[in-house]
Amino acid sequence: MGERIILGIDPGTTIMGFGIISIQNNTMTFVQMNELNLSKYNDHYIKLKYIFEKTLSLIDTFSPDEIAIEAPFFGKNVQSMLKLGRAQGVAMAAGLYREIPITEYSPKKVKMAITGNGNASKEQLAKMLQSLLKFKTIPKNLDATDGLAVAVCHFYNAKNQSNNTSNYSSWKSFVSQNPKKIVS
Amino acid sequence: MGERIILGIDPGTTIMGFGIISIQNNTMTFVQMNELNLSKYNDHYIKLKYIFEKTLSLIDTFSPDEIAIEAPFFGKNVQSMLKLGRAQGVAMAAGLYREIPITEYSPKKVKMAITGNGNASKEQLAKMLQSLLKFKTIPKNLDATDGLAVAVCHFYNAKNQSNNTSNYSSWKSFVSQNPKKIVS
Repeated sequence: MGERIILGIDPGTTIMGFGIISIQNNTMTFVQMNELNLSKYNDHYIKLKYIFEKTLSLIDTFSPDEIAIEAPFFGKNVQSMLKLGRAQGVAMAAGLYREIPITEYSPKKVKMAITGNGNASKEQLAKMLQSLLKFKTIPKNLDATDGLAVAVCHFYNAKNQSNNTSNYSSWKSFVSQNPKKIVS
Repeated sequence: MGERIILGIDPGTTIMGFGIISIQNNTMTFVQMNELNLSKYNDHYIKLKYIFEKTLSLIDTFSPDEIAIEAPFFGKNVQSMLKLGRAQGVAMAAGLYREIPITEYSPKKVKMAITGNGNASKEQLAKMLQSLLKFKTIPKNLDATDGLAVAVCHFYNAKNQSNNTSNYSSWKSFVSQNPKKIVS
């Protein structure tokens, strides 16, 4: 089996964290992590536009085979969830446009998969990732490590579940299973 | 002033309604309306993918100058708002990708603008639209007329407010006003 690239994204309305790992012979290698800081823009649409463009640019630069997204399913109120849904939606749109399978993981599941503790702090998560992936410096802002974490979580999850149908949705498998359902 | 095309969208998680009007010499002409019915797909991502693709295809077919989106800001619960936010997000992503200015209107504002009654029924709205735009038949399912309604609402709103800054966000004007803020 050749190289597999996983792009992990933690999309938020002001900061989007992302990380990329490469899998070869069942071993992870760190590729990149960073954050897209949108706090300087007041316009909601401009934030959404940058999230879409950044995700599309990451896809076109690193050609990921799979995308993993950290997605909280509960939030403080309907307003914040609508905004979060939009941020997730534009990031997903880039993946769907390029026909890359997307999997979602809750923050708890990500923390659990990496630290063994669903309530681990961002700092604990970052330190565990550093020990696993041997990157030099932990970034000041831990949104980048959150993005990286969901990519690692996806690698562990795909390894443990050969037939992971619960929250995995492969566009390619849908196409092959339902050739007549595809409207071109 | 030449022809102006407005694309109105009412994005939902199972049905997306849309309508297109053309404005010339301050007069509206009906171009098209329809709905994208996604109820036959169980997969959330496939729904989102079709919303994105349909919106992009409408943009590339009709070259709208502006997009108006019906967007409820309140909902039953955080789960449904997250889903709605994603549906709105993927539709918006298509518009943002093509750099078309997007404006949002609440359902109440749309009804108010067209019927004079913020609590008008879908049927009342559809009949008023038919009388305004002279289309032959009111579609059975009123999601199409809801999409058309937001396009008409946007036309009225832009006519009444020469400097409509409240919920209007023009990417083009942002670019011209903030040339240094654009990361290419």
